[in-house]
Amino acid sequence: MPVARTHEDMLKVGVNGYGTIGKRVADAVVAQPDMELVGVAKTRPNFEAERAVAKGYSLYAAIEERADQFVKADIELAGLVDELVEESDVVVDATPSGIGAENKSLYEAHDTPALYQGGEDAEMVDTSFNARANFADASGAEHVRVVSCNTTGLSRLVAPLEAEYGIEKVRATLVRRAGDPAQSGRGPVNDILPNPISLPSHHGPDVQTIFPDLAIDTLGLKVPATLMHMHSVNVSLEAEPDAEEVRELLEGESRLFVVPERFGIDGAGKLKEFALDAGRPRGDLWENCLWGESVSMEGNDLYLFQAIHQESDVVPENVDAVRAVAGTADAAESVETTNDALGIGF
Amino acid sequence: MPVARTHEDMLKVGVNGYGTIGKRVADAVVAQPDMELVGVAKTRPNFEAERAVAKGYSLYAAIEERADQFVKADIELAGLVDELVEESDVVVDATPSGIGAENKSLYEAHDTPALYQGGEDAEMVDTSFNARANFADASGAEHVRVVSCNTTGLSRLVAPLEAEYGIEKVRATLVRRAGDPAQSGRGPVNDILPNPISLPSHHGPDVQTIFPDLAIDTLGLKVPATLMHMHSVNVSLEAEPDAEEVRELLEGESRLFVVPERFGIDGAGKLKEFALDAGRPRGDLWENCLWGESVSMEGNDLYLFQAIHQESDVVPENVDAVRAVAGTADAAESVETTNDALGIGF
Repeated sequence: MPVARTHEDMLKVGVNGYGTIGKRVADAVVAQPDMELVGVAKTRPNFEAERAVAKGYSLYAAIEERADQFVKADIELAGLVDELVEESDVVVDATPSGIGAENKSLYEAHDTPALYQGGEDAEMVDTSFNARANFADASGAEHVRVVSCNTTGLSRLVAPLEAEYGIEKVRATLVRRAGDPAQSGRGPVNDILPNPISLPSHHGPDVQTIFPDLAIDTLGLKVPATLMHMHSVNVSLEAEPDAEEVRELLEGESRLFVVPERFGIDGAGKLKEFALDAGRPRGDLWENCLWGESVSMEGNDLYLFQAIHQESDVVPENVDAVRAVAGTADAAESVETTNDALGIGF
Repeated sequence: MPVARTHEDMLKVGVNGYGTIGKRVADAVVAQPDMELVGVAKTRPNFEAERAVAKGYSLYAAIEERADQFVKADIELAGLVDELVEESDVVVDATPSGIGAENKSLYEAHDTPALYQGGEDAEMVDTSFNARANFADASGAEHVRVVSCNTTGLSRLVAPLEAEYGIEKVRATLVRRAGDPAQSGRGPVNDILPNPISLPSHHGPDVQTIFPDLAIDTLGLKVPATLMHMHSVNVSLEAEPDAEEVRELLEGESRLFVVPERFGIDGAGKLKEFALDAGRPRGDLWENCLWGESVSMEGNDLYLFQAIHQESDVVPENVDAVRAVAGTADAAESVETTNDALGIGF
């Protein structure tokens, strides 16, 4: 457990972008014993802005020209995003893909280290980040990219398998949800789309930003579902352990939830119901959800299914990346602190 | 082209079960120059029974005790299923899974060779059947099982690859439609279900009923879509051809439709629209629909996506199996005749 910090010791974190990821990261920061949320920035005074203020978060306008929209909507502003960045030790940029790159100069102008999300280009940052795989690479970095939900999910799985057995090759089909539950304009309806059609997909190279030497080919599809992504995974190992041994290895990972057969969970709907019953905020599943029964070995070929909650699995990773950049904890300390503060593990 | 047959020469085919597959097989039989449809048998006087009679097909009651239901519904019966079987040279059993096995004794009682569908147990028959892979195995057989839509789709793909390059291993994820368009009670809605959860799935062993020595591991999922199944396929070849060569090989197969990139077809919805625009009956896609752009090689690993029309891809296979059992044509002759009669190929 971390030592209690004085106000001066607390890491001051700003969150720029208060949508699906940003609002969850803000809540997660507030829950940490060693962090203080300076505030959050947002472009529009929608329901999420209203909720931020209702929760007592200081709200900053992300675009100066639109600040009057908040005034008109009777939503109290603490200032402009520049002030948020200036007051923060680390900023988490949780803006839509591509906007992070546009914001880079803002963070540099204030000499504030920044975390970006997986939608940004890996070339833009000093390092891509996954707490389980390469925490130390972000130490002292100015620009760090917390990889996407799918890459996070694959990295958490690859790390222990690579360490324990060595990996010959990963082949994964990502059956992706069409959009988040609130993204009412997304499709398809009643179709199964190869996406992208050309193979292999970009997901494999993205995993290689974390594991540069990993052989991995990925295929992506989009289907009419909103709750979670589903990974159909094959890992050709450099050893031939039995399935039970692999399952126990995976059960030992704090951010892999190996779903027990006795729970009778058949898909994402029941997983989310389980998370809500467990009192998880917003029904979030921060862990990879991996079916225990599915873990199987055929020769040196491991097969398994895992569901990835696209809205939340990167949240603890963002929290850890704050500490990695600030240099206030090593990987093991940070992950334990984050897990304890959030209540990760069932 | 087959020689025109006299009435006496025509193969007399009966179809027992007039649902999704049966009605399509009946139409396909009628279209053949060397076959005559004796009639179709059905258990209930629903809209399909009404249509059968409207088309001039002789309709037989599949269950004697329910024959009066047809009378009450004012649907004309030609007789009972026993008469249909007696008058047929070959019967195609297109009843729901498990009912085919119950019907086996009926066909034996009349000494009429029978074809069953992929839902029946492979142990029940003399041979499982795919026209491209093992036509000759059905020669003179009494009980033949035309493998399922997914197994048919995989077999058509495996056959040329195995012959041309040799196959080290097939790994395929079958992203399956939840139900056919008319199966209004099927699910899931808004979920992605590992199905079965335990791996590998039974689909691999089913392909091995056609290719006994093939190394194949499969994984199955169910998603909220109705139009077609989607296969995410990896084949580790025993050679390293370039992707273009593999694509040309596959384009040479009459029951593989390699979708050209210029068509702008992104999924099953547009494939079905294309088939309807092309005047296909019921918008059927008898061929595997395989995205040309997706065909790729990484080392000796081939990857591709193919969509499988679960309602119709087995229809030409049933037609060929009739000739295989009757011994009236070899594989090449039969496939060409079937293709020409149906209009396979775009």
